[in-house]
Amino acid sequence: MLDFRTDMADERLKECEKEGKIEGISSENINVNDKIKVTKVRVLNEQGKEKIGKEVGTYITIEIKEIEVINEEELEKVSKILSGQIQELIKPYKSILVVGLGNIDTTVDSIGPKVIKDLKITRHLKKYAPDLVGKNAKELSGIAPGVLGTTGIETQEILKGIVEKVNPDVIIAIDALISRDISRLFKTIQISNTGITPGAGVGNTRKEISRKTMGVPVIAIGVPTLVEAATIVADSIELIANQFEEFAQLKNATKEDKYRLMKAVLEPSKFNLTVTPKEVDDLVDNMKLIIAHGINGGI
Amino acid sequence: MLDFRTDMADERLKECEKEGKIEGISSENINVNDKIKVTKVRVLNEQGKEKIGKEVGTYITIEIKEIEVINEEELEKVSKILSGQIQELIKPYKSILVVGLGNIDTTVDSIGPKVIKDLKITRHLKKYAPDLVGKNAKELSGIAPGVLGTTGIETQEILKGIVEKVNPDVIIAIDALISRDISRLFKTIQISNTGITPGAGVGNTRKEISRKTMGVPVIAIGVPTLVEAATIVADSIELIANQFEEFAQLKNATKEDKYRLMKAVLEPSKFNLTVTPKEVDDLVDNMKLIIAHGINGGI
Amino acid sequence: MLDFRTDMADERLKECEKEGKIEGISSENINVNDKIKVTKVRVLNEQGKEKIGKEVGTYITIEIKEIEVINEEELEKVSKILSGQIQELIKPYKSILVVGLGNIDTTVDSIGPKVIKDLKITRHLKKYAPDLVGKNAKELSGIAPGVLGTTGIETQEILKGIVEKVNPDVIIAIDALISRDISRLFKTIQISNTGITPGAGVGNTRKEISRKTMGVPVIAIGVPTLVEAATIVADSIELIANQFEEFAQLKNATKEDKYRLMKAVLEPSKFNLTVTPKEVDDLVDNMKLIIAHGINGGI
Amino acid sequence: MLDFRTDMADERLKECEKEGKIEGISSENINVNDKIKVTKVRVLNEQGKEKIGKEVGTYITIEIKEIEVINEEELEKVSKILSGQIQELIKPYKSILVVGLGNIDTTVDSIGPKVIKDLKITRHLKKYAPDLVGKNAKELSGIAPGVLGTTGIETQEILKGIVEKVNPDVIIAIDALISRDISRLFKTIQISNTGITPGAGVGNTRKEISRKTMGVPVIAIGVPTLVEAATIVADSIELIANQFEEFAQLKNATKEDKYRLMKAVLEPSKFNLTVTPKEVDDLVDNMKLIIAHGINGGI
Repeated sequence: MLDFRTDMADERLKECEKEGKIEGISSENINVNDKIKVTKVRVLNEQGKEKIGKEVGTYITIEIKEIEVINEEELEKVSKILSGQIQELIKPYKSILVVGLGNIDTTVDSIGPKVIKDLKITRHLKKYAPDLVGKNAKELSGIAPGVLGTTGIETQEILKGIVEKVNPDVIIAIDALISRDISRLFKTIQISNTGITPGAGVGNTRKEISRKTMGVPVIAIGVPTLVEAATIVADSIELIANQFEEFAQLKNATKEDKYRLMKAVLEPSKFNLTVTPKEVDDLVDNMKLIIAHGINGGI
Repeated sequence: MLDFRTDMADERLKECEKEGKIEGISSENINVNDKIKVTKVRVLNEQGKEKIGKEVGTYITIEIKEIEVINEEELEKVSKILSGQIQELIKPYKSILVVGLGNIDTTVDSIGPKVIKDLKITRHLKKYAPDLVGKNAKELSGIAPGVLGTTGIETQEILKGIVEKVNPDVIIAIDALISRDISRLFKTIQISNTGITPGAGVGNTRKEISRKTMGVPVIAIGVPTLVEAATIVADSIELIANQFEEFAQLKNATKEDKYRLMKAVLEPSKFNLTVTPKEVDDLVDNMKLIIAHGINGGI
Repeated sequence: MLDFRTDMADERLKECEKEGKIEGISSENINVNDKIKVTKVRVLNEQGKEKIGKEVGTYITIEIKEIEVINEEELEKVSKILSGQIQELIKPYKSILVVGLGNIDTTVDSIGPKVIKDLKITRHLKKYAPDLVGKNAKELSGIAPGVLGTTGIETQEILKGIVEKVNPDVIIAIDALISRDISRLFKTIQISNTGITPGAGVGNTRKEISRKTMGVPVIAIGVPTLVEAATIVADSIELIANQFEEFAQLKNATKEDKYRLMKAVLEPSKFNLTVTPKEVDDLVDNMKLIIAHGINGGI
Repeated sequence: MLDFRTDMADERLKECEKEGKIEGISSENINVNDKIKVTKVRVLNEQGKEKIGKEVGTYITIEIKEIEVINEEELEKVSKILSGQIQELIKPYKSILVVGLGNIDTTVDSIGPKVIKDLKITRHLKKYAPDLVGKNAKELSGIAPGVLGTTGIETQEILKGIVEKVNPDVIIAIDALISRDISRLFKTIQISNTGITPGAGVGNTRKEISRKTMGVPVIAIGVPTLVEAATIVADSIELIANQFEEFAQLKNATKEDKYRLMKAVLEPSKFNLTVTPKEVDDLVDNMKLIIAHGINGGI
């Protein structure tokens, strides 16, 4: 899982633009329709990198409004837009290794490995059933390397080993993201061609999956799936601090006042937001065992 | 999913006891060991009911400390304690219908249906393989009726229909609970013999699953699995309001101050708490499709 | 799971037609394209019933050739054909209860409950969100009642109880079928409006789910998912008996001779057929536990 | 999935022993109780290898009778026996990489990856939480590399890459086996220290996972989970051929005669054997989509 804080090139740009035109950066906004919006930021050179604090490369954000009521057709529309963006990024490459980062048994962290299961893998067909694939077709291979906690091995090490054997021209790495912003949960897909650092943030470049560590370009696709509970609390404090006069009476505040604040913090997401341990899948299974054995033993 | 707010008999009692001895209520505390604690509250009569605001009946709470590092042996210990409590409650009854409330495909709401899968069902054996069960053995049957959103039918209606055909002597209903208190998440099992109202709270007795609606006694077993995000925010406001002088400077507060408050709100749980939509399982599958189709289409 | 032997109206008809024209039966063949074929047999009256040995009613068979290499578009085509047939059968009815028979945890028996999970249930919306559904829209409800072995209750009893509460106008019951014919495995969908008898065959009408037992019409949708191993053996004996002269030398037969027979028996299916216990899902989980505990304990 | 034909050292030995004492081979039989039997065959040198046609090494078979009615306690007993055998084989090694071969989404082929999920992985703890593991504890890491059809990469290549990075002292490879003998399905665990060749048989040593290809010793643990349908047919022919006089009248055989033969072929397994495509999990999901869309579209 990727730390999200430093990854939103489109948000960085907004901040920077307040201060006027920026050299070394180009950007583009496409409103596909009233539900889907694509933002593309290109950091062109060292000057741009310095300004925006992001590596030289392309950063694409697909935003989907009201995904909670999306239908099949609209889902397919978003897929097609994503296809187009990917197509452009992988045009020069022939052999593509897709890597599904994360833990398939932890729901919020499962999107990477789940994508791998639905891919149309073709690399082996070139060898074993060449008639099924065109002569110039790209070769797709895919792997879900698991996470450190379940393999005991750094994900980066596993991938390095595999890349040395498979020799892909490019890697596409998919991961769930920790978001700082509840309004982006499950509503944003980010694509960049500058790699990814799974499971962290705090400057730990050891685990980076990028051209530097893999030897080939790495396209990262990420979806924000959770916000740390601490973030929500911090946000509510922020809000209080900003509207201090208004909330000064909170000591004797009515329930309605508190409710108003609560709404202000949570409104941007239309979901039924809940706080639960990240390990909820395991914890449910433990409790299930306790209760089932409890009943079986009590009968 | 049950609203938890009004359900913690042990907490209610604590509040009441501050005001002195209470007639019509008996209570008992057992520290099984330094990790497991059992609290039993009995509301004996109308006088007790009025005081504590809970129906006449027995309310048992099993608390497990440090469940995040529990081992198999300790798990089995908790099962045995639960077995004992259930045994006492079902002693008079022969035919038991276990009902797993909730939605198996929504992780936080899946504990009821998952328990059903692990039960040793025996009711049919009496008829089809009488040699396999003792003559005086209890008859166990089990059903996971689903939730309104996936069946289109009120759970209570489904159960009424089944109870009329199966004629059990007692129902055991298992459900995930919405908690108000993050320190109880996945660490508490509540058992009562006064029934359950799934999916709600606000005085909606229509959906109640109890002796009144089912015609037979209903033992409820509940586990708190989530806190609404709004609760966390409300709690942080509460804390600020209570320590107002201390936090008055928040407007210009340092990061450290904010962090201190954040810790105060989240500390009671040792888990890695996250905020995510309740529908996370579905949302992950949607996003998986978008990305997998996106890649398949882009190659 | 339904016994399949007596259920293939189209095969019965073929047998009967050898003897000439039949009164009281009409039939229709539609070759949708070179991959999909629909056969519709109508038993019109008692005379027809007697001839063909099937209840008065409509029997539809959708056959899909080469489903092992079917693509998404063709899948959707078959869905549409099925939609059309269902539409015709349910035209007079408004409130529809779909019943998913079988055990979701036994792969070959899981199709019924799995379909329920993918339905667009609307019955509750009429009440709780009437704006979301048209005024004249049909009401869809759905239930997966489980199997006797996991509930301890006859499926028919559960359904009777629910039907009495829900009062649907028609039931659609979906089940996996035991086939006698490996060439039909996963390649045939059968629809009839005469009900279904899950889990069996041999004249056990007690368990029948039909207008007689439910009080409303029952449309059955079935898919053959397995052949009993005994059937394969019986078929191979049949073949040997029929080609006795040819196989008389089998005592000293070469491997090639045996292989030839083997091919003759298994050829009609293009699948990689395997023999495995029906309980394979459970057995795999047991073995997994043994080996995982074995390794954990051995380290 | 491993071809089983050449792997049953205990059966080979039985064949050979008919011809008298064998040099270069030692064997041992332990009847743990009346349900569990352990056979250990050691091929000591080239002479033994030549006789029995198996590599120099140790071949252990754990047989479990009546696993269809096994209880938890007996399961744990088998785990302990397996633990003991593994302990002996890995005594000299410190860092162990467990490899779960097979496809987790194909039930009969899922045992390898499923075992990986239940292991107590410790390798990373040495580095990140050294206090949690003893100083001299073994290091366990685990990986489920997937199958060629879903990764596009030869399993052997993936493993070579990982082994070069992880540098384990020994590999334990777990796989589902194709059996020739229905009486062994899910009732036998085989352990050897001579490696494994997944997915095949016919002399394809390219894919071998062994000391030769991995550079470290490979302990293989296998469980037979399926028999090819062709094998059942071949077996029935064999039986007919052997009892030719008896079955000579089969042309005009009664149902009873056929039933007798059928029983003779299938008796050794006490399971409810079924013939179904190996791809049953996928096929069920396809059909589910067709029917669910069919109903959704027809309403």
